[in-house]
Amino acid sequence: MKLLNVKLAERSYPIYIGQDLLNDSELMCKHITGNKVMLISNDVVSPLYLDKVIATLSSGGKTVDTTILPDGEVHKNLTTLNLIFDELLANKHGRDTSIVALGGGVIGDMAGFAASCYQRGVEFIQIPTTLLSQVDSSVGGKTAVNHPLGKNMIGAFYQPNAVYIDINCLNTLPAKEFAAGMAEVIKYGIIWDKEFYEWLKVNQSLIKTLDPATLISMIETCCAVKADVVSQDEKEHGVRALLNLGHTFGHAIESEQGYGVWLHGEAVAAGTVIAAKTAQLLGHINDDEFDDIKSIFRLFDLPISKPDSMPFEAFIEHMAVDKKVLAGKLRFILPIGIGHAQVITGIENNMLKHAIENH
Amino acid sequence: MKLLNVKLAERSYPIYIGQDLLNDSELMCKHITGNKVMLISNDVVSPLYLDKVIATLSSGGKTVDTTILPDGEVHKNLTTLNLIFDELLANKHGRDTSIVALGGGVIGDMAGFAASCYQRGVEFIQIPTTLLSQVDSSVGGKTAVNHPLGKNMIGAFYQPNAVYIDINCLNTLPAKEFAAGMAEVIKYGIIWDKEFYEWLKVNQSLIKTLDPATLISMIETCCAVKADVVSQDEKEHGVRALLNLGHTFGHAIESEQGYGVWLHGEAVAAGTVIAAKTAQLLGHINDDEFDDIKSIFRLFDLPISKPDSMPFEAFIEHMAVDKKVLAGKLRFILPIGIGHAQVITGIENNMLKHAIENH
Repeated sequence: MKLLNVKLAERSYPIYIGQDLLNDSELMCKHITGNKVMLISNDVVSPLYLDKVIATLSSGGKTVDTTILPDGEVHKNLTTLNLIFDELLANKHGRDTSIVALGGGVIGDMAGFAASCYQRGVEFIQIPTTLLSQVDSSVGGKTAVNHPLGKNMIGAFYQPNAVYIDINCLNTLPAKEFAAGMAEVIKYGIIWDKEFYEWLKVNQSLIKTLDPATLISMIETCCAVKADVVSQDEKEHGVRALLNLGHTFGHAIESEQGYGVWLHGEAVAAGTVIAAKTAQLLGHINDDEFDDIKSIFRLFDLPISKPDSMPFEAFIEHMAVDKKVLAGKLRFILPIGIGHAQVITGIENNMLKHAIENH
Repeated sequence: MKLLNVKLAERSYPIYIGQDLLNDSELMCKHITGNKVMLISNDVVSPLYLDKVIATLSSGGKTVDTTILPDGEVHKNLTTLNLIFDELLANKHGRDTSIVALGGGVIGDMAGFAASCYQRGVEFIQIPTTLLSQVDSSVGGKTAVNHPLGKNMIGAFYQPNAVYIDINCLNTLPAKEFAAGMAEVIKYGIIWDKEFYEWLKVNQSLIKTLDPATLISMIETCCAVKADVVSQDEKEHGVRALLNLGHTFGHAIESEQGYGVWLHGEAVAAGTVIAAKTAQLLGHINDDEFDDIKSIFRLFDLPISKPDSMPFEAFIEHMAVDKKVLAGKLRFILPIGIGHAQVITGIENNMLKHAIENH
């Protein structure tokens, strides 16, 4: 088992990465102070892991209630969030309860936001079960729900007390979702770590066949980068924005298609290719680097083009409400070579149009 | 004009108390960083003050959009909250917007909670227009909405950037609402400051006739106590709980009657009398002190008894989900003499029943 720490002003918290963590009662109860737990999952993950986690927490002396939400990004909204509050109150959970998220990014984001605002804040534990949530959304404390007019528009910065990454969960993950997670993995390489980027290409086949040691190492690297970035800039006033490479274009794709039609990671992959194209047009990366970025996404079975039917104008409309907009100006994260990235503003609409239409 | 500071680890923020503040463009824009403002009010307050505040902010160079919510505690819920997000997104407000609350406690609580979670947190300014919100809810950063099963169950600790208390707003406040505010004023005397408690009795008539100097002095004392308490214990792990004197019983009354049937301050007054009765039964206050507490509420036209039809069992049911419950145990704030209070647990049901049924 690997152990990382996210260092934050208020407090640090551990990320455990390994196999069979979900059966380890002592480990799983270590960061739960009270006796009551509200376990949040969805109707796809719960048949696979719910009983196991309940048994593990119960044998550690916890009383476990559950809220099972419908699966999917389309349900990541205030109405579904309220189902969590309904269960917490119906089961008389006090301020000393702990909310445990068992699932992917949607469950983690909703359970975390619920934890941040139930009785103005209760303990929160993350058990991410998808690759995407293991390498990205479970670490760093961003929680949110969507609004019909924008993704993740309603939320909080709220750090978990601990994150448990059990790579055995990846054995039941559909290939399409594994690929979506790889989009965020590749992102870390592009923005932060060229060596890791190259390592991903070399280890492609071990990764795709879910070799445990390779997966643990890969996830550890991603979490270490994320922990480092978040420790430097919890509330995204600076460097943390780089983690959003491909997300401005990606969110526009997700919003336009309707949440859940494209997986988040798929949209990020296509969005990153558009960002890379923009960077190429601006001279921040050369033609070979642009081709290399396209090819690594293809290598991991990810889309490298926007939806055919989505016009430039639809991107502009959605991007105008992006959270990175400041004083009405669009801000983009663009790769600067491979292994670095930067926030760039003031890009001409003509150039954006070209990047979006010809990448 | 008086100026107080709330000192908090992260940052301090000012409370301005005076007359005609709402016309002072420089003062009102001083703590707004960006250019866009979302002004939140309700359909009772907005006909009185909305145009004035828009004019003041506009002449300071701000672009002002508005969200007018229906008035009343019954609308303090997630559905109404979402109207604020609708307007923010429809008007393309970014992370650099400022949310300004113009109204009583309900508006302040909802606008503050919206500010805490819109794009994971934007600037927030309080302009409380009722006595209750001026002396209590606008200071200290508690924000929330209600759930059908419990008051203020969904919310955040989120401090404003500044609070503007214009006592001229009290000239348009219905007498019943002024009285409700006095319940929280009296509370500060009982839990913290015997001298202030006595001062209130002596100055009863100046207070009720809205003498400006008397009101400014009274509100300043309340805000100073609250700022002091909140500085010591922002997240209510200790002394801040004392501010909830009368609130456990009071919330039960509000929940049972349906939000808005009893005003919050009215419920707090009756709840404080029940708390005082419990304290008397436990020997923490003597018979004269109990009578004095009853009489000061009567002096300011407040109820001193629970609703006739509300049985003991209804109190117990609502109190079981109170936020002060820890490890399943009810915790009560009780006066210890006049001018002090304490958190007391382990009170026998028989004694509670007696206090609730005979106060």
